[in-house]
This record gives sequence, C-alpha cells and structure tokens, in this order.
Amino acid sequence: MDFNTDLKEEIAREVARETGIETSARDIEDILAGLQVTSHFWEVVMLARQPFNVVSSAIDFLARKGWVDTQQDGSLALTAAGKKVIEEQGIAPRQDHRCSRCHGRGVSLEKLNDLVARFKEVTARRPEPILQYDQGYVTPETTVSRIALMLDKGDLEGKRLLVLGDDDLVSLAAGLSGFPQEVVVLEIDDRLLDFINEVARKEKLPVVARKYDFRDRLPDEYVGHFDTFITDPPETLDALEICLGRGLTGLSGAGGAGYFGLTHAESSLSKWNRVQQLLVGKFGVVITDIIEDFNHYVNWDYLLPSIKSDLPFVQVEPRSNWYRSAMYRIQVLEKPVAFKNEPAACELYVDEEALIYRATLKAAKGEG
Amino acid sequence: MDFNTDLKEEIAREVARETGIETSARDIEDILAGLQVTSHFWEVVMLARQPFNVVSSAIDFLARKGWVDTQQDGSLALTAAGKKVIEEQGIAPRQDHRCSRCHGRGVSLEKLNDLVARFKEVTARRPEPILQYDQGYVTPETTVSRIALMLDKGDLEGKRLLVLGDDDLVSLAAGLSGFPQEVVVLEIDDRLLDFINEVARKEKLPVVARKYDFRDRLPDEYVGHFDTFITDPPETLDALEICLGRGLTGLSGAGGAGYFGLTHAESSLSKWNRVQQLLVGKFGVVITDIIEDFNHYVNWDYLLPSIKSDLPFVQVEPRSNWYRSAMYRIQVLEKPVAFKNEPAACELYVDEEALIYRATLKAAKGEG
Repeated sequence: MDFNTDLKEEIAREVARETGIETSARDIEDILAGLQVTSHFWEVVMLARQPFNVVSSAIDFLARKGWVDTQQDGSLALTAAGKKVIEEQGIAPRQDHRCSRCHGRGVSLEKLNDLVARFKEVTARRPEPILQYDQGYVTPETTVSRIALMLDKGDLEGKRLLVLGDDDLVSLAAGLSGFPQEVVVLEIDDRLLDFINEVARKEKLPVVARKYDFRDRLPDEYVGHFDTFITDPPETLDALEICLGRGLTGLSGAGGAGYFGLTHAESSLSKWNRVQQLLVGKFGVVITDIIEDFNHYVNWDYLLPSIKSDLPFVQVEPRSNWYRSAMYRIQVLEKPVAFKNEPAACELYVDEEALIYRATLKAAKGEG
Repeated sequence: MDFNTDLKEEIAREVARETGIETSARDIEDILAGLQVTSHFWEVVMLARQPFNVVSSAIDFLARKGWVDTQQDGSLALTAAGKKVIEEQGIAPRQDHRCSRCHGRGVSLEKLNDLVARFKEVTARRPEPILQYDQGYVTPETTVSRIALMLDKGDLEGKRLLVLGDDDLVSLAAGLSGFPQEVVVLEIDDRLLDFINEVARKEKLPVVARKYDFRDRLPDEYVGHFDTFITDPPETLDALEICLGRGLTGLSGAGGAGYFGLTHAESSLSKWNRVQQLLVGKFGVVITDIIEDFNHYVNWDYLLPSIKSDLPFVQVEPRSNWYRSAMYRIQVLEKPVAFKNEPAACELYVDEEALIYRATLKAAKGEG
C-alpha cells in the first residue's frame, strides 16, 4: 500500500483545511478501516483514533463524493462506489485482537472483584456529569483497573495519593481498597466535594476532598507532599500543562508517579507529540506506560447539544462507550521538575480539537 | 511513606556511586518490594524494573549490612533484621494484577493460535543466540503477539514491513500470517539470513533477508519504501539513535509506524527519558504506545559467562524468562524526521547499564 496515494492525500488536505487540524493520508486510511467494521459514527471515531472533528469532516467529504450514505436512523453505509474505492486503495477492515478478559488494559480485576462491587454500591447515587466543567466519568471497571495498575506499579499501597479533579471517584475506589495511607481530592465541583466527603465519612476512608480550581496555586501544605497523583485533565495544551504541572508540584521528588488520560477523540497525534515534548523535555520526567483505550467513559447527556456539528450521522445517540483515553504513567527523575506553581489564567476546555463548541460552553456558564 | 527517608537515600547514593547509574530512593524501594516476593536474583531484576547492575549493587549493599543472606544455591533470603528494616520503611511486597490471559500485553492470541503452531513448527531448528551480536530471542508467543498488535493497529495487513535485525524471526511470523504485502529483513548474521531465506523459499512467503550492518547507510532502494518497521535494538544511546533512525528512514512518511523494544534491565529510567527526548524532540515522531513487559525473552546460554559480576547470588542460572522489554510504537507526523542516513561508527552493545561486560565481548570477537 502506498501512503502517498493522491486520493487519501486529497481528502487529508481537505480535512486539514476545514478543521485546522494536522491530518495525514494515514489518518484517512484509519477512518476508512473503521468504516468497514461499523456503521455507527461514534464507533468510527473510537476505532480510527482520530479527533472527532477530523472524522466527521472526512465522512462528510466521502458523503459528498457519493461513497458513503447516511441512513434514516443516522447510521453510515458504504455505497458500491465507496467499496470500490476502498478496494482500489487496498485498505483492510480494522482487525481486533484486543484481549477479551482485560479489554486490552493489561491489568486484571480478578483479585479486585469485591472492590468493584463495593465501589458500585457506594457510588450508586453519584452526581451526573455537567457541561460547565467538561465532565464525563469512566466506567466502574475502569476506575478499579486504575487501582489495579497503581498497585501493580507500587504506587498505591502505603502511599499518599493526590487526585486532581475526581468525577471518576478514583479517591473512593482507592480508599475502599484499603491500600493507600492518605488520599486527597482537589476538585472544583461542590456536588462532587460533598459526595466524596460524605461517603468517606460514612465508610471511614482516609479520603478528604477540598475545593480547588487548578488555575490557582497548589496549596502550600500539598507541595511535595504526595507519592502519586492521578488526574483526567481537559485537553487544551494549556490545561494539560497546568494540570500536570500542579500534579508534579504535589509529588515529593524523584520516584514519584503521575497518571493521566489522553484521548484521540479530542487530541490529534500532533498534540500528543507536543504533550510528550512537554513531559520529557521541559518537565524532565519519563513516560513509563502509554496504554491505549485503558479508560472507557460512560456516555453523558450533554454530548449532542454541546457539539457544533449538525450533520445527521453525527447527531445520533452513541450506542456504546465509544469515548476512550490512553492511560499515561509518568515518573519523576532526579532533576527537579520545571514548573512554576503560580496562578494561571488559561482556556481549559476549548480548542479546535475539542468536542464542546465554545458557544455552548459559554451558554452553560451563563456567559452566552 | 516518605521517599526522602535517609536509609533508602543512602543506599541509592552508594549504588549510584558504584554503578555510575542515576538511582533514586524509589528505585531502592522497588528492589525491596521485589525481594519480598521472590528469592531469585533475576526475578528481582524483572520485578524491580531496574538495571541489572543497580539491582546487584543494591543487594550486595543489603548483604553487607546483614539484611539479606545468600543461600547455598544462590537464592536470596531476607534476614530478620532485613525484614524489620523493610517494615520500618513501610515498603509493601510487590502486588501482581497483570491479566493472566494476555500476560499484560493487552493483545490476544485467540484468533492466531494456528499461526503460533505453524511458527513453532517452521522455526524449530532456528539458530541459537550468540554473544558477538548481543542476541537473545523472544518467545514464540511474544513474536505472534507482535503480529497481533500490528494487525490491531492497521500496520500490517496489505503493508510493507521492514525488520531491522531479526533473531526473533518476526519476518517469518508476519509472512506466515498471510497479511503483509512484502517483508524485508536486514540482518548482519549469516546464520539468520540463510535460515530466514530458506524458510521463506520453502513456505513461499513474501519475505526476503539481506545482509546489512545498521552502522551502514540504509540502501537507497529501501529509503521511504516501507509502511512499518520493527526492530529490537541494542541499548546504548548511540545504537538506539542509529537503529531507530534507519528504521524511520525506511518509512514512506507521515503515518508510518515503528515498533521497538526497550528494557529496564539494561536501560535506566534516565536513559528512557533521553530516548524519549530523541523520539519526540529531534525525530519529531509521536509515541502512541508503551506496553510494559510485552516482550519475554528465552534465556540464552552466554548470560552468566558474559557478565562482569561474580557475586554468588548473580551467578545463578535464571529459572524463568526474567528478561523483558516494553514495546514502543511510534508514528511519523507531517514533519520530516531529522536523521542523516550516513555511515556511523559507534559503540553498539556496551555502556555502564549493559549486561555484557566489555572484555567478554572483545574476547568473543577475537579482539581480546
């Protein structure tokens, strides 16, 4: 197969022009590989591992060419002409060889089944995601898989854990596991603060949640206090830098570990590269793990109203947990991390790769 | 737990002084976590995910303090005093939550069982590893898991694959799978060249192996020719840069993918950071996956004679496949990769983190 084939290049150029996101012929190929195994837009986004905007723009282009049809119910179908093009280009359907037991995460819940059950019990009445803070939480199995991963790495048992933003309720799963010495949640949403503190009190967990906006300085008593941090940051570059910088500021030095999720749905590979440069260059930490599709998110109510696109194949309710992120683990080396713990004003939620559209976010905040 | 505890710091400083390798209190903690679950030196190296030299130096220090005893058979035992120190330091035994089905790789062999069987059959008389080229091959299950991973990512079916050095015989597994369009092996060892070409001819595989020393220029006909490369480079920084640079030179541009293994046993986290800086900075590619312990190596005959250490707990035959490496996947972005495809004279095999000792390598090459 030849990556330089004119057709894929042409679509990639068109998509890049329309979205402002760097797009290669290979990215188009990944979308066409996905389109051969699912007719559901959100699953194509998941399989192609491309920004949502890139996938919708590419499919819109294919539709205009007559290669893809949108059905009555919003599902996608390759036309005879579309199938012919794909065959000519030699693009194979995406294969799936992920492990069915761990869903590709590599860690097992075998020894933590009781924890999964307890976690579901105590979080049954959890607050639902709201647009204002760009929330969206992971499945209980994902949350406990994070506990398994941290235990496997020696980052949780007997350790001090900082959770920066916690709509996933990792703090409660960690507390319920009985392993960490101390868990501190810093969170902006009062509903979550109240919920976490209430459960922690009732279950006698070593977990405390405090109000915090990560644009503010990390409070002095937490600087250098923790062994491990975990966070699921918004994905503008500014938000990533500040959020990860605060987490690293919380660690006690060399050997401290950080965990965070990064998606493809809202972050192009070009943004991934910039995040990686920040981590290993400026911050001087090492990336020890990148586990694709580790985090599976439960669908949230505000998705369709919050996006800009009104394309009929995009405006369909997701039928599966399509939104995923890779789990990164980073570790601090001897060199001090270069990050100034000072207040930072920045755009947290919206860039050209974000799902949420700026106007809908403003409206949600009453700024519209 | 406090990472700054004086004792762990003291051991870390002593080990760093003795080995010349950056070592943190956390690294010492990881060794002590491993020592609580195995008495076998090579398994401690595996569990601690530290350079072999760091682990042997640390255990030697612990032995001199009377905290670890070496048994008659070379196995290690924590003494009562050693157990007390570990308890005081609050260091938990290493937990294991890896998925038992995929061994933490995240990919499954379920759909590729026939390939595993065929691969074992045709490679039954494969050449054994020799010291001269720092060889050591992975288990057949590992080789086929690499095929599963490449298929999962859309990097193999219908594609052109470059294999740079192939004692693992990935080329034959790829050929037998029936998926790639073309597989080219560039390899220095005549035994492997003959073996691969013989099997390829007999089995009618689209695989060809050619003699190549990666210190030489990548031949012109292969520059920009491939969609995907895979390699398992020696782990000096020079070797990593040249080997990965040649692989990237072989790719046809944006969207091309590269796979390679990197160990902890011969590469400190500080070296990992430098490799990552090279990849995302100078080379300008993105790292999409780092899957810890993906590659399991079959024990090789020359291990014990080739290392410098004569410590009794080190000079024991490994009882399990302790030597592992993380699988990296990288992908090329729009920006051209900055690497000059020119001849390079460099040290391939030996730095202060290597298993092989310089003198034994020289002797093997008849330079001793």
